[in-house]
Amino acid sequence: MAAACRTSPTPTNLSGPRGRSPSIPRFPTIRCASQPLRTPSKTLATADPVPAFLSVTAFAPATVANLGPGFDFLGCALDGVGDTVTVSVDPAISPGTLSISSISGSAASAAKLRRDPLWNCAGIAGIAAMRALGVRSVGLSLHLEKGLPLGSGLGSSAASAAAAAVAVDGLFGGRLSLGDLVLAGLESEKKVSGYHADNVAPSIMGGFVLIRSYDPLELLRLEFPTGQDLYFVLVSPEFEAPTKKMRAALPAEVKMKDHVHNCSQAAALAAAVVQGDVKLLGMAMSSDGIVEPRRAPLIPGMVAVKKAAIEAGAFGCTISGAGPTAVAVIDGEEKGKEIGDRMVEAFLRDGELKASATVARLDRIGARVISSSAF
Amino acid sequence: MAAACRTSPTPTNLSGPRGRSPSIPRFPTIRCASQPLRTPSKTLATADPVPAFLSVTAFAPATVANLGPGFDFLGCALDGVGDTVTVSVDPAISPGTLSISSISGSAASAAKLRRDPLWNCAGIAGIAAMRALGVRSVGLSLHLEKGLPLGSGLGSSAASAAAAAVAVDGLFGGRLSLGDLVLAGLESEKKVSGYHADNVAPSIMGGFVLIRSYDPLELLRLEFPTGQDLYFVLVSPEFEAPTKKMRAALPAEVKMKDHVHNCSQAAALAAAVVQGDVKLLGMAMSSDGIVEPRRAPLIPGMVAVKKAAIEAGAFGCTISGAGPTAVAVIDGEEKGKEIGDRMVEAFLRDGELKASATVARLDRIGARVISSSAF
Repeated sequence: MAAACRTSPTPTNLSGPRGRSPSIPRFPTIRCASQPLRTPSKTLATADPVPAFLSVTAFAPATVANLGPGFDFLGCALDGVGDTVTVSVDPAISPGTLSISSISGSAASAAKLRRDPLWNCAGIAGIAAMRALGVRSVGLSLHLEKGLPLGSGLGSSAASAAAAAVAVDGLFGGRLSLGDLVLAGLESEKKVSGYHADNVAPSIMGGFVLIRSYDPLELLRLEFPTGQDLYFVLVSPEFEAPTKKMRAALPAEVKMKDHVHNCSQAAALAAAVVQGDVKLLGMAMSSDGIVEPRRAPLIPGMVAVKKAAIEAGAFGCTISGAGPTAVAVIDGEEKGKEIGDRMVEAFLRDGELKASATVARLDRIGARVISSSAF
Repeated sequence: MAAACRTSPTPTNLSGPRGRSPSIPRFPTIRCASQPLRTPSKTLATADPVPAFLSVTAFAPATVANLGPGFDFLGCALDGVGDTVTVSVDPAISPGTLSISSISGSAASAAKLRRDPLWNCAGIAGIAAMRALGVRSVGLSLHLEKGLPLGSGLGSSAASAAAAAVAVDGLFGGRLSLGDLVLAGLESEKKVSGYHADNVAPSIMGGFVLIRSYDPLELLRLEFPTGQDLYFVLVSPEFEAPTKKMRAALPAEVKMKDHVHNCSQAAALAAAVVQGDVKLLGMAMSSDGIVEPRRAPLIPGMVAVKKAAIEAGAFGCTISGAGPTAVAVIDGEEKGKEIGDRMVEAFLRDGELKASATVARLDRIGARVISSSAF
């Protein structure tokens, strides 16, 4: 799991404890040699670190992946909603291993999750983080509190993985870099939904994150200017988006003309994020001509929901991740609530689906330690 | 030719005489109803304007289109090199028409050009600008001074068209918007190389321009921060890139995986421009996995030239437009000259082609009136 990671082009220390907000320069690019994952990093290989705390609790935010033309390489973190993981030193657990002690949260989500750590997102990422740290002498127990519904398109699995990786790292004093943490989270994503970092990277790093390359892993944080008003309207219908069907709806090839169109929208989207141009961000996000047109018809009411969002004043609307949540953007919270109401109505009217709306801001911090207990 | 144009999202007057540098805010988006082109705009339809000058000379810069993953939607203007057009009120010319009186410049370029205005880039764009202005009572003569070689991949035809459109507009006091001027230039591009604005838009507007849509035409100027050092190393070999062959080398469809890769590079490229991150700009420009790999082998030595540029320290290198010019980027002029020397050597060694190198900065102004004569 361990990997040699460095930051570039602006040398900066992006590693360290995640309990505090690091001073992040413009465009921190994180490069990690993602292959081979089994080679321990030089700095951590022989570590077998001593825990700094008895117990640590970390929170990781929900995320919106894809953002229309940013399909499979762009995502952002949402303020206020997410998963929480507590890891504790537990003498009853075999040294170097991790056990899931309990899972709580909304009944529907928590009940569906397995407690076998090898088949649980938090478990997989937690173990990967232990491996990256070189933990051999300590056994850990993990409690997962699901704040996010499963299969909603809001990065539920990634949030569990991100919170677990950051909690384990925090327990040992925060020794892993952001790149290491993302790679730990990717171990989980790979198992549950494919080797995509567009949820787990923003959940760990906060803000907007662009994945420029997987081999080596290169993550680019696009800094949305502070002081600019950006609100995400998230409307989740009571509908399970069939992930396999959503992936199968994608074409193996795209026409050159469509490629150029989506490329230009993706470029406009990235520029809009960096410049804090919310209107352009919405317009570009709304202009995917490849993925959304194929997936939207698979979510009852989605086409009408997008139309309703735009008519209600949203700057743009698309599918969050692989759905079924619809995401719209706007520059005011009250306007966001109004837009959300119209979107909920449209889901009911055209999709015959009950839905709930949330208005969230951008999470700029990412996964972080929220509490710790000393020995 | 005339079209209703407006600027958005930041309302600002982008029209007006091009002799002065307009105060351009961040992200001026220019929207023009490009269809129907034959409908005269309401404001100018009945104009038949009176010339403000006897003669006007305008200069339009060379441009680099594509910039790797920005294929067919991104381009930028180059400082110092370009074409110059002089238009004069000429009683000997039938009112409402335009005649090309002379063409000068490097023998190779000038001699190849036709003086029939309907088959000359400057002529076509000049006539389109006259039509947009509603000129009916005045005949014009046009002199074109070719500063750019033909078929070099530096937007030679676009520069002629841009200079002509701006000169004609300047003669009548500068009544057309930037969008109108780009549409006039597009009339020419359509005839000679296809309906692409990625050369003519930056030649007219200056800086980096992203074409977000053609119908309606939406142009987005990406403001590269002032004070950042960005140098383009342009190495042009003595080789005629067969345009048809270059276009034919493109695939009709691209694999989804390649699409996602190029989209992410395009997004990184746009963000790098706005943020003034020259290193990332170079890396992203250098990462096209679709067009460059198919076109580079058609230009003798190009693969080695790119390698030589990177080895000499360039942040990135790709084909300018459809070639054969190679373009590299770097943050210092002296380093640029050194890189250019290595690229010239590589063209000779691996392509058996003589080549010449130029180091240019970004042109931030675009086509402009450089002199005028009163009646």
